Amino acid sequence: LLLLDIPALLGADMSLITLTTDFGHADWFVGTTKGVILSIAPDTTIIDICHGAPPGDIRAAAFALAAAYKYFPQNTIHVAVVDPSVGGGRAALAVQTARYFFVGPDNGVLSMALENEKILAVHRLENAQYFLSPVSATFHGRDVFAPVAAHLARNLESLADMGPKQETYQKCPLPQHNQDGLLLRGSVAYIDRFGNAITDISNDAAGAAYQIVWCSKAAFPLKPCYTAMPVGHGVAVRGSSGFVEIAINRGNAAERFNLKVGDTVTVRHFDAKPMPTPL
Amino acid sequence: LLLLDIPALLGADMSLITLTTDFGHADWFVGTTKGVILSIAPDTTIIDICHGAPPGDIRAAAFALAAAYKYFPQNTIHVAVVDPSVGGGRAALAVQTARYFFVGPDNGVLSMALENEKILAVHRLENAQYFLSPVSATFHGRDVFAPVAAHLARNLESLADMGPKQETYQKCPLPQHNQDGLLLRGSVAYIDRFGNAITDISNDAAGAAYQIVWCSKAAFPLKPCYTAMPVGHGVAVRGSSGFVEIAINRGNAAERFNLKVGDTVTVRHFDAKPMPTPL
Amino acid sequence: LLLLDIPALLGADMSLITLTTDFGHADWFVGTTKGVILSIAPDTTIIDICHGAPPGDIRAAAFALAAAYKYFPQNTIHVAVVDPSVGGGRAALAVQTARYFFVGPDNGVLSMALENEKILAVHRLENAQYFLSPVSATFHGRDVFAPVAAHLARNLESLADMGPKQETYQKCPLPQHNQDGLLLRGSVAYIDRFGNAITDISNDAAGAAYQIVWCSKAAFPLKPCYTAMPVGHGVAVRGSSGFVEIAINRGNAAERFNLKVGDTVTVRHFDAKPMPTPL
Repeated sequence: LLLLDIPALLGADMSLITLTTDFGHADWFVGTTKGVILSIAPDTTIIDICHGAPPGDIRAAAFALAAAYKYFPQNTIHVAVVDPSVGGGRAALAVQTARYFFVGPDNGVLSMALENEKILAVHRLENAQYFLSPVSATFHGRDVFAPVAAHLARNLESLADMGPKQETYQKCPLPQHNQDGLLLRGSVAYIDRFGNAITDISNDAAGAAYQIVWCSKAAFPLKPCYTAMPVGHGVAVRGSSGFVEIAINRGNAAERFNLKVGDTVTVRHFDAKPMPTPL
Repeated sequence: LLLLDIPALLGADMSLITLTTDFGHADWFVGTTKGVILSIAPDTTIIDICHGAPPGDIRAAAFALAAAYKYFPQNTIHVAVVDPSVGGGRAALAVQTARYFFVGPDNGVLSMALENEKILAVHRLENAQYFLSPVSATFHGRDVFAPVAAHLARNLESLADMGPKQETYQKCPLPQHNQDGLLLRGSVAYIDRFGNAITDISNDAAGAAYQIVWCSKAAFPLKPCYTAMPVGHGVAVRGSSGFVEIAINRGNAAERFNLKVGDTVTVRHFDAKPMPTPL
Repeated sequence: LLLLDIPALLGADMSLITLTTDFGHADWFVGTTKGVILSIAPDTTIIDICHGAPPGDIRAAAFALAAAYKYFPQNTIHVAVVDPSVGGGRAALAVQTARYFFVGPDNGVLSMALENEKILAVHRLENAQYFLSPVSATFHGRDVFAPVAAHLARNLESLADMGPKQETYQKCPLPQHNQDGLLLRGSVAYIDRFGNAITDISNDAAGAAYQIVWCSKAAFPLKPCYTAMPVGHGVAVRGSSGFVEIAINRGNAAERFNLKVGDTVTVRHFDAKPMPTPL
């Protein structure tokens, strides 16, 4: 008896679920979601990636998930819920990749992470036996995505139990830029807490011979770290999320230069012709 | 020896404690409370319901706890601390219901949840051996409620060890409305992060024949989900917290209509006479 | 075989890591840090002390850590990351004290806590085999401090494995005041969520014969608790963080009196001559 019970008691299948949402921290939405998970899969560890995406901002949450997900252990179940069409027609998905599981609405919120992963299977969540009952029309994070993730965490059900396979998933529409050549064009993709403007130009594209980053309002030398420029000066760096970012050493670049998501950015190669100084 | 040690090591009594407070996330109050719990009951899982109630707003935290608590596993210990009279005369309570435990000041913060539960016992927290020593005059979340909850989580002490029984508990005073008939009257009870105004009119009261929600500023068709109205249009729904709420599809109703907690709301039955259009 | 496996499976070395940063909750920085820890040390419990220090505000985070750390179990690993010089020349440290471990940049963020502890060893983090690879120039919380803390949590490596010993650590420069005598002089050290202005004058210094707290804008009677004064009135208390604080019963003292960190404060003994009333 002892031997039989030990694996379950030991949490040999102990799982990790992450949450990325626009629920914020003021209300009970995140806590309730966790209560549902722990009611179904009590041994699960739940980690918040973040809940600060502006309400309904699919791209902000997709960016956050893409920046964070790969730092988690293999087999982590990543749940992302920004769901402005909840109760309408959008599908709900569970996706298995070579390293992880992803669960969320099929509206693009998973897509930036999935683009980096080898997709093994995409299934629609249609089997209501894995949902709470009844399912509300407005809070599928609690009623659909949390219980499905928890059932996956218990490792007793497979994706195929959750619903039919589908071929692909919705992408987050991104502006397409020319990101190689002497002038790499892109845009601001995310403004973080520190006022750093993270672009969609990858560090890999902006190699050592690229030296200046321009936005419409200023030029920033591309340096190894913030402190390569004096305190209060603008600086661009190859950022920790994998993309070039615009910053001020110990300052807030987004506030100072009124930078917004979508603003155009250019990274200039050493050999490119000088650009006119911004006004 | 091995056999004797296993139950404790396995965390067979592993417990879940939730926290609902007005402590916010900027300071160390929530973290310190968790440190105290884990010092006494190291195997406890601690989940934040939320800490965003406005400072001293007992009703906001009571509403959040009531919306969330029942999504947690049986025997969860729910701790709620909004405590503007800390150090003064209010009592401190531990309450056992058929499914859960509740710990907090006797000022109404537990009452909205308790109203839905079968109460088994109410005890005052007076046995200082379960408190930190010394007890500060200003932070009973850390010094009284956290250690009591942690001792309960260890499952070695009962409520009766904590202090004397009392008969009842303080209620959160709520405006009393006529909530049946052709016109259900109520008020806004909570504004959430999305700007949805959650009323105190229950979904059950507002059945299928109820079709319109009025506040003093606008009328909202009562629909199955936000997306039943076009983007940017007002809509009322039977909300996920169990109460009718006023929203804007992909918008912020509280901002647009300047809705506040306490604002009067009316839900109109199909058969009721039309109300005058709000100005 | 069973016997051999049990200690590891049981998490007999289960560890606790706390995080105190200026990362905020809006972005993925805290979540990513936790992912790194759990990738290396899956059985670790991670508790947020707080992430709300203003960007780059070393003193605010140092104060929060000092107020909270001692409420955690022995052997807790406290990680603090406010790191405005990341990528520049500052050292990174792991410190062992009689009761705890501390990990963070050598810029003062650990110092207010360390001042209360018996230091056993201070080591610089220079052994890159315990870092993520590559190490970014801008996010050492994720790439250096989290993996080092996780390796310490596994209890397989010692501080000496992390890098060379050094003698001391950077202090947070604090204004020096005369904190004994009939007039204790100090300053506001922290404003909390409730608008309470916590000073650097210790409760121990301000014993029972001290009766009044003055700031430049008002005088506050030093009382046992907030509710010793009527609602809306100013009051000083010996606060839960160990320091005298200025408050308003059910109000926000920092807003009302425009109190800021650094403002001068005086605590007056019963026997001291009266001070002129502030204007």
